[in-house]
Amino acid sequence: MNVELINIGNELLLGLVTNTHASYLGQKLAELGFLLERQVSVGDDAEQIAGAIREAIDRADLIITTGGLGPTSDDMTASVIGKFFNLRFRIDEKVRKANEEWFRRRGAPMPELVKHQALVPEGSIVLLNQNGTAPGFILPVPGGKQARWLAVLPGPPRELKPMFEKDLAAFLRNQFPDRTPIHWRVLRVAEVGESVVQERVEKKLKKEFPEIQVAYSARPGEVDLRLLGPEETLERAEAAAKQILGHDVFGGGDAELEQAVISLLRDRKKTAACAESCTGGALANRFTNVSGSSEVFLGGWIAYSDEFKKRELGVRAEIIESHGAVSEPTAREMAEGARRRSGADYALSMTGIAGPDGGTAEKPVGTVFIALASGEGVQVWREFFPLDRWTFKWRAAQAALNRLRLALLAHHE
Amino acid sequence: MNVELINIGNELLLGLVTNTHASYLGQKLAELGFLLERQVSVGDDAEQIAGAIREAIDRADLIITTGGLGPTSDDMTASVIGKFFNLRFRIDEKVRKANEEWFRRRGAPMPELVKHQALVPEGSIVLLNQNGTAPGFILPVPGGKQARWLAVLPGPPRELKPMFEKDLAAFLRNQFPDRTPIHWRVLRVAEVGESVVQERVEKKLKKEFPEIQVAYSARPGEVDLRLLGPEETLERAEAAAKQILGHDVFGGGDAELEQAVISLLRDRKKTAACAESCTGGALANRFTNVSGSSEVFLGGWIAYSDEFKKRELGVRAEIIESHGAVSEPTAREMAEGARRRSGADYALSMTGIAGPDGGTAEKPVGTVFIALASGEGVQVWREFFPLDRWTFKWRAAQAALNRLRLALLAHHE
Repeated sequence: MNVELINIGNELLLGLVTNTHASYLGQKLAELGFLLERQVSVGDDAEQIAGAIREAIDRADLIITTGGLGPTSDDMTASVIGKFFNLRFRIDEKVRKANEEWFRRRGAPMPELVKHQALVPEGSIVLLNQNGTAPGFILPVPGGKQARWLAVLPGPPRELKPMFEKDLAAFLRNQFPDRTPIHWRVLRVAEVGESVVQERVEKKLKKEFPEIQVAYSARPGEVDLRLLGPEETLERAEAAAKQILGHDVFGGGDAELEQAVISLLRDRKKTAACAESCTGGALANRFTNVSGSSEVFLGGWIAYSDEFKKRELGVRAEIIESHGAVSEPTAREMAEGARRRSGADYALSMTGIAGPDGGTAEKPVGTVFIALASGEGVQVWREFFPLDRWTFKWRAAQAALNRLRLALLAHHE
Repeated sequence: MNVELINIGNELLLGLVTNTHASYLGQKLAELGFLLERQVSVGDDAEQIAGAIREAIDRADLIITTGGLGPTSDDMTASVIGKFFNLRFRIDEKVRKANEEWFRRRGAPMPELVKHQALVPEGSIVLLNQNGTAPGFILPVPGGKQARWLAVLPGPPRELKPMFEKDLAAFLRNQFPDRTPIHWRVLRVAEVGESVVQERVEKKLKKEFPEIQVAYSARPGEVDLRLLGPEETLERAEAAAKQILGHDVFGGGDAELEQAVISLLRDRKKTAACAESCTGGALANRFTNVSGSSEVFLGGWIAYSDEFKKRELGVRAEIIESHGAVSEPTAREMAEGARRRSGADYALSMTGIAGPDGGTAEKPVGTVFIALASGEGVQVWREFFPLDRWTFKWRAAQAALNRLRLALLAHHE
């Protein structure tokens, strides 16, 4: 069962718009048991659209198109499909009435251009548009080598999504009742490199669970290990991978590291605070992205200037003078100050050089000191994340969150 | 001149990741004078990758692939291309040394898997990876009907983007010196709705500059107005749009609102600080995303708990008791406290209900009070952003930044 997606629109190829339909439909189809095999974007051009359909028709069982159904002259999907399959069109009374009602409710006259949107191919299943005037349709494909169905959806996400969820998904479930939803598990790993994760798990997984597909995707300080396969094997493969990776796994699915940290704090009935210099709020922002974080996250300081560090966090002037604002002792006093002033069980601090300017030979751009103060004292790590400014901030916050997570696991097991 | 893009990765078809490469490269290529004619996503599958190349090779002058260059077993782009074109690979000493240096600087041993990443096709132009270990390469296509060049880029955006901008763009400029860049201008507008922007500018632009294409794209609290067309008309059309929109335009190109604010603060020799409750660092994080922000941004407080608001910012207990933590007077005292304690010229504060829980009939989820304290007193706005938690934080920070921007423009013109 092969599904192909054709996204139509010049804006996709000019980069004016990011194609969110591909990921939306890819995921929704997988949940229904259909794997998207190929996705193509072409412009608002009759030849290109026809070419993409011609290719797909010999390969795919189901073709889905998006876009090009609007009322204006650059919207040509329906007419291209009509010519391609030599279809006749008819006025759909339901669509015509719905569109008249649409404009009546808005107290506006229906533009001439909208009238022809009630035209649909004869023999197709019409999909009403709840949020617009362009209907979609499902066409039984006449005489392709392979393709049986062509589903034609509008481009705007708020028109496409309800149409898929309400109508096309039901049609697919009905038409293909035997599809098995595609299962996967994601293990999310913090602060271990992609190739190290693979070296640790792949041999064992391939050997013990040959039917499981293993894939990796990485961003700075984070690797997603993805397992695909039959459900019961999946569970055992996931357990095996978890055992190998141990505490390096911070969660599954799409849980973020900050959610793992907030959960641990809640479980352990502990509180946290933070004092940031170089990350400038990136750490607090991640803590507070978690709904309910206010129960355990008490607050934080963005101590961007030396003055601020001294006055608000009690960092001693002589520490900054003799070691510098970016130093192990400054990080230590920031964390101690944040813990003392907030009354939190744990306080994280960070001071470093986000760049692109401000580096020295001894402390190049990317250097960061991360401190964690707790009832057991203060730990400080010196790290080096030579990344662009935004990624440096994210990566340093990632490290801080992960050190706190590991400390929570170690202290309270 | 026909350019086709092939994006490789199961994650794209399973919808686990949104394809941002297509829009990024589409835009960058247009800026260089190349129109992307087609974009295809295929999975990590040798046959599918080879199939996509086979199709493109008879149609496109230039083919770009992304993804599948990592060190793990599901990364197979280079080997598929090698087999397809019957290429020989060689160890590239520059890449090998750079990768060794990469791990040395991080004080980590180089995993075995990374070693083979120094293998590149003989006869290709190697593109060094500044942010990873997988090199890209440009291959003169041997014997396609049409295609002359195949450029192979890594998947992670932070590896792909500098590689494109530093090396591939230069190569294309050199190789195709006669391309006419496709021109556009972007005006970025803060806190005005997409349809309002359209109502204000479109009629006039269409009438006075019929050869200019006008497009809009929106995210919460921000609209990009994009004008495409011949360069000299473009300039006049941009000037006309700017005049209509006035101070609602905060910048052009890809400048973020926070950059506009930091620039204004620098120009005016003013400083800022902030005190955040519901946004939890999102505002400070945006201030500090700007390189050089430490000159004018002094610091901030994440006053997540009532205790913190009172102790660190001097919000009076009776204010919180009688009006609540989410209230006009609390926002006012937070801003005043932040200004007094930081010594900044301007202090912003925010207190609200990010949700999904914690709303009441009187103050539903999405309610936020934004205060701006300056030498001229305190202004407070009550706003309502009923959005998901992350977007609420972003939108509220957007409002705060914009109010400060408008105040800076008004006070110091």
